[in-house]
This record gives sequence, C-alpha cells and structure tokens, in this order.
Amino acid sequence: MSSFSTPDIVTADAADLAAFDALFVQSSAIGATAKGGLHRLAASAEDGAMRDAFCAWLRERDFEVRIDAVGNVFGLLTFDPEAPYVVCGSHLDSQPNAGRFDGIYGVLAGAVSVASVARQLRERGETPAFNLAVVNWTNEEGARFQPSLIGSSAFMGSLSVDDALAARDGDGITLGHALELIGYRGDGMLNLPIAAYLELHVEQSTHLESQGLAIGVVRETWAALKWRVRFDGEQNHTGPAPMAVRRDALLAAAHAIVAVRAESALHGLQMHSSVGRLEVQPNSPNVVPALTRLLVEYRSPSVQLLAEAGERLRATLDSIATSTGTGFTLESELLREPSRLHDGLSELALATCAELGLAAENSVTVAGHDAISVSRRYPVSLLFVPSRGGLSHNEAEFTESADLHRGLELLTSLLYRACCQPDRYL
Amino acid sequence: MSSFSTPDIVTADAADLAAFDALFVQSSAIGATAKGGLHRLAASAEDGAMRDAFCAWLRERDFEVRIDAVGNVFGLLTFDPEAPYVVCGSHLDSQPNAGRFDGIYGVLAGAVSVASVARQLRERGETPAFNLAVVNWTNEEGARFQPSLIGSSAFMGSLSVDDALAARDGDGITLGHALELIGYRGDGMLNLPIAAYLELHVEQSTHLESQGLAIGVVRETWAALKWRVRFDGEQNHTGPAPMAVRRDALLAAAHAIVAVRAESALHGLQMHSSVGRLEVQPNSPNVVPALTRLLVEYRSPSVQLLAEAGERLRATLDSIATSTGTGFTLESELLREPSRLHDGLSELALATCAELGLAAENSVTVAGHDAISVSRRYPVSLLFVPSRGGLSHNEAEFTESADLHRGLELLTSLLYRACCQPDRYL
Repeated sequence: MSSFSTPDIVTADAADLAAFDALFVQSSAIGATAKGGLHRLAASAEDGAMRDAFCAWLRERDFEVRIDAVGNVFGLLTFDPEAPYVVCGSHLDSQPNAGRFDGIYGVLAGAVSVASVARQLRERGETPAFNLAVVNWTNEEGARFQPSLIGSSAFMGSLSVDDALAARDGDGITLGHALELIGYRGDGMLNLPIAAYLELHVEQSTHLESQGLAIGVVRETWAALKWRVRFDGEQNHTGPAPMAVRRDALLAAAHAIVAVRAESALHGLQMHSSVGRLEVQPNSPNVVPALTRLLVEYRSPSVQLLAEAGERLRATLDSIATSTGTGFTLESELLREPSRLHDGLSELALATCAELGLAAENSVTVAGHDAISVSRRYPVSLLFVPSRGGLSHNEAEFTESADLHRGLELLTSLLYRACCQPDRYL
Repeated sequence: MSSFSTPDIVTADAADLAAFDALFVQSSAIGATAKGGLHRLAASAEDGAMRDAFCAWLRERDFEVRIDAVGNVFGLLTFDPEAPYVVCGSHLDSQPNAGRFDGIYGVLAGAVSVASVARQLRERGETPAFNLAVVNWTNEEGARFQPSLIGSSAFMGSLSVDDALAARDGDGITLGHALELIGYRGDGMLNLPIAAYLELHVEQSTHLESQGLAIGVVRETWAALKWRVRFDGEQNHTGPAPMAVRRDALLAAAHAIVAVRAESALHGLQMHSSVGRLEVQPNSPNVVPALTRLLVEYRSPSVQLLAEAGERLRATLDSIATSTGTGFTLESELLREPSRLHDGLSELALATCAELGLAAENSVTVAGHDAISVSRRYPVSLLFVPSRGGLSHNEAEFTESADLHRGLELLTSLLYRACCQPDRYL
C-alpha cells in the first residue's frame, strides 16, 4: 500500500446520500400509515415486502445475502475469507402505528455506508483489515413477539433459537411460522466473526435537539427491570354479584398500574416506569374480569435502585392481591444490567466527529437496542442523531434530512476507520 | 266452554319435563367449553347452530317460525289470528366462557311450556283468549355487540333497527353481517300484538338459595348508569421519553377504575359498580398507551343516587385527565330508569306458586333482562329459580334439575292462566 492509496479518512459522497434518500423513501412506503407513520410489525407481510426490497438492493450491489434461523438478514462484502467483519445494522420492524426512522435508519444508512466504503476501497485497490457487513435484526421492537431484541439475542446466544422461534403473537402465531410465511426462516445460525459493530439510531429523546448537537456517542445504557404480572380473579355478573364477593382482576391491575407510577415518581429523573400492555379476560362489559396480565417496566441508571423497587413492587402486588381477593403470579422477571459501550470505538467516533466538523457529545441510552445485545461480547459504537421533540414509537417521529445525512457521513467515516485502522481502537 | 273442559290450572307433565331435559342437553353441547360451561356469543357460528336446532324443534311441533330484521326468532302457535299473544322467552346467546343456564333456560322452558299448554288446550278442544308464542331475543348479553338487550330493544322500538344492525364487534364485524353469515337476518320487524310476556331465569344471586325458596317473583329492577369513557394520550417510547412529558392513557384509565370502585364503596349495599371492559391502544410493551376506552357501570335501586354518582364521576374523570395530561371524552352515556313489573301478573304468579306448593317470595333484579325491555309497554312477569352460590357469567354457573323443573311447572301454569284467564290479571 502507498500513502496515496490509504487516506486517513473517507466519507459518504453525494451519490451515497442520494442512494440513502431513495432507500428511505422506498422503506417509508412499505407499511405506510395515513398519518405519515409506519406500521410494519416483525415478520408481517409488510416486513416481508421490506426485507425483499432490502435484499434486492443488496444483491444488486454484489452483497452476499444470508438469512439465519431466526430471520436475521446479513449482507456480506468479503475481502478476506479469514478475516472478521465490521458490521453495521439495526432493525426494519416497527411498533404499531409508529415512526419511519426508528431502527430503519440504522439498517439503510448501514447498507449505504458499507457499499460506499467497499466501493472506495476497491477504487483504490485497498484491502481492509476486516470485512464489511450490514445486518437487519429480527423483531427488535418486541411489539408483535416478546421479548424484544429477539434476533440479536439469538445471534449472541443469550436467547435460544428454539425459544425465539416459539415466541407467539397475540393470535398465537409463532415467530417461526410467521417467518416461514414471509420466506425468511433460514437454516441454522451464522457463525460470523465480529471485529466491531456500529449502529446509527435516532435519539428518541431531546438532548441533542435542545443542545444543538449533531451526534450523540452512547457510552452507557440504563438498566431495566421487566416483569410480566398476572392477577387471577373470578368471572361473575357485574350486576347482581354482591360487591363483597367480587374478585376483580381488572381492579387489581388498576391498583398495580397506579402503584408502578407512584414508585417511579419517588425517584425523579433516576427512574422511568410504564405499563404499556394490559390483557383483560374475558373483557366483556357485563362480566367481572377473571384475569389480567400486565407488562411492568422500570428503567434506571442504577440496577440497585431497580432491584429495590422490584422488592417493593412484589410486596405491593401481594397486598393488592389480598385486598382485591385476587391471586398474583409473577410470570416472568428480567433485570437487565446496564452496559458500558466500547471506549476505544467511542473515542474514535468522537474524534471522527471533530474531524468532520460535527458537534458531538457523550450520550446515554434508556431504550434497549440491538447494539446493547452485541456489546456484551464485541466492540460496539451506538451513535444517535437528533429526533424532533424526542417523540418516538409515534407516527409523528421525525428527524431532519440534514441530520440523517450527517449521521450517514459519520457512519461511513467510522466504518472505514473500523475496518482499515484497527489499531486506533482495539 | 263447559266447566269440565276449562280447568282452573294445568301444569307441565313428565313428558314435558323430559322434553325440556333433552333440549337442555342439546343446547349445552353447542358451544360447550372444556370446563362444562358455554361459549356461544351472539350471531356466532355456535349461536347459528343453536338457532337451527331450536327452529327445527319448533317446526316439528307445528310452531310457525318467524325471523325479524335483527334476528329475533319467534315461534307462534296461533288459535285466533285476531287475538294478541302471550309470549315466553329469553336469549340463547352467552357471555364468553360462561354458564349453560343464563337466558337459555327461559327460551327452552318457554318453548316446552307453550307446546304443553297448546297441547292440553287442543286435547280439550279449548280455545284460549290469547295466542301463544316463544321468542329468542338476539344479543341479550351485550358481550360481542354493544349495547346489551339489542333484540328486545329493537322489537320495542327503543333502539332503531339501523343502529342495532350497525353495532360492531371487536373485529369490526357488524351485527347485520354476522346475522347474514348464520342465516338469521330476516326482513322487517314483526308487529306482534302482546297481551303478556313471561320470562323464566336463573337468579344470579343467592337470595333464593339462602332462604330455601323455589321461586322469586321479580317486582322491581335496579336502575343502571352505563358510560363509555375514552382517554386520549400520546404514543411514545416507554424507555427514553421523560416521565414529565408522558401522556399515558392507561394510567388515566387505572385511576378511573380505582375511582369507580371507591364511589360504590361509599354506598354499601345500595350500589354496585364495575369496569368489565377496557380497550388499550396500541397495547404494546414498549409504547406509552395512546388511547383507552372503558365501559363504566353503576347500578342502584335509586336513580337519584346514580345521577349524583355520575356527576361526581364526571368531575373525577376531568381531574384524572388533567393530572395525567390526557384528554377525556364521554363517548356515550345511558341512565336506565328502574322499572316496576306488572302487579296483576306478579300477584297471579305468587298465587299460582302457592297452589303448586312452591315456596315463593317477591324479588328484585339488579341485572338487565329482556323482560325489562318488554315491561316498558306490556304486562310482564319475570320469574327466578335458585342458582348455586349466585355465580353467573361463569362456567361454574349451576341450577339443580329439580329447581329447573319447578320453574317449568310454574311457567306452564302461569302461561295457561295468562292465555285463558285474562281477567285474573288484566
């Protein structure tokens, strides 16, 4: 190699930005809602159509497309079959009636960056230290199938393939069957050696916007406690049944929802809480509800705080069950530790921002991301661009085109360095 | 008529009891649940199969079967085309995973009583003052389609046929379409002149059982307040969205459910309350709920108490909406006046019980029944038999066979008197 053919930095050019814009327009049309949002649940027909479009784009650009057993889609550009890969990616599925950016941005910008870096390397006859890949992880959102992060967790081995494929949606359809229906249930898992993983994402909060920053380099994640709670009551007639004998599972759930919010209110900015999903059975106007199932979530930078809140919640739910005459079962519990992302890669991202003239700062993520799954074992950088008003999981989710382009430029530069300059971060 | 051919009283014989038992076994198999209950929602395939069996039974016994525009099924035995009808009936639909008796008992016992009385009249060559009929009212339960009492309300004109047919289930299917699918959407409404209406029903409470009584003669009904309440929040990510900006429609609903119960708790035995149905959108684990819809119900003997409770609830819901940053809409409100059933017919029922040796007392109904709809204009008697533990809208709902038979005997005797001895109650 000569010093002429190995520049210190490369980035996306105008053609790359245009390619990204075209892909994003195409994606926004598949599962588009009347209000300008996106409804593209994991392994739905819409997700299938989007995957088809994505794979076609990759094949046209000579990516080797591989589908694994849980439907993760990899697009590989291999320079040296012996070398590991630098992987960019995120997810193409959405929440119900949600936004066009969440996850999708990371996959599409990732594909364009990989293609751009590969093209620039080939033009100069340069061979990188690591190969390049883009990935679309299956069911990041956890909307149609629980848990969330199914694809990246199965890839990492923290969730078994059997458990992943057996996850059922609200109609009882398994993820395995849903993937078969759209033609994205592959054979076996890909044993892909990973040198580094880069994920670009909209911030879903207001810090970058309010501070006038272009990029947030995520250094840490919040911890999360996720409980699935069930109350068992007794089905009865809402009219004649005396109040004293009623065992109302919905009343119990209501007390629990109020208690969950009261707990997080005690901790100010140190804790977020939610009950986003509640099942009621039989959910008929004249019937005392016999069963409710709640998904309770606490999030905090402090796993200790979450553990303590969990213990208080357990006592509160017991007390609610007693006072409402219902039975309480903790069907599943998960306490996700906080993670620290790779320091070397994060510092390289910050330095690269400075060189590109992008105002950047360290950031924290409250939400889970595929990057967090991958970071348990590999060097990961998770990069945020601003999102207007922080609104997310909402049809009105929005990021300016200029911000999307700045993120794509950074990703392209960082990807180039990650595959060609390993000694700068490893 | 001679005194030999017009007895003062007749009742069901052993063959009638056996005919009822056979019909009840047949009914209990159509929509049977694994736990011995019944799941036969209005205008479902199971409801269609039961209607087919019921109509076949009627036609075999020379009833004239008529289906009206909202699917009500009438079985007519006409002695004098100019005379009005004494009608027995109730409903063949059930709540989800509910009991085998509620409503069904009144239709099947009604059909057997009508057939028995008609047979005994014909055997003696006696012509009654009024004709006889049995009716199965559509969607009494209000489980699949709201409101409840659709068939009897449409018949009485208190609900328009268009509104009845436009009622939609949770999947958006209209009652009109569902009736077409099972072949029970008829043409026009039947203009049936009614002399009296008799409905036999399980008590759904414990008074008769605890007092060792065979029959309750319902004299009064409770009033009911039924509100459909909607909270509008804002869909957002449950992770990063700051708690301070969240507008959580499920949190608002939880506060409302707790408040509804607190209101009824103030009034002891004078008020029942419930929220039996709650819709949550989008109901996804990682999404702050954007919309909830609750069906709130208060019941009381005092319509004044309900009106006052309704005013307090309105203020409470406003305050909940303010404190949770949500919007509150009262989508529909209904304040059902209490009714007093027909005194002459009720006194005749009590006297008949005494003659038959059945321990009977005046009773009150908290639940709505088709009989209440009909009583707004016609003489009605609503008769209860005991139900074990008062358990209703539950698979374990149960009434002893001997109690069912005693009710059938009373109904047959009262029907005979209602059609042959009008001066005893009119």
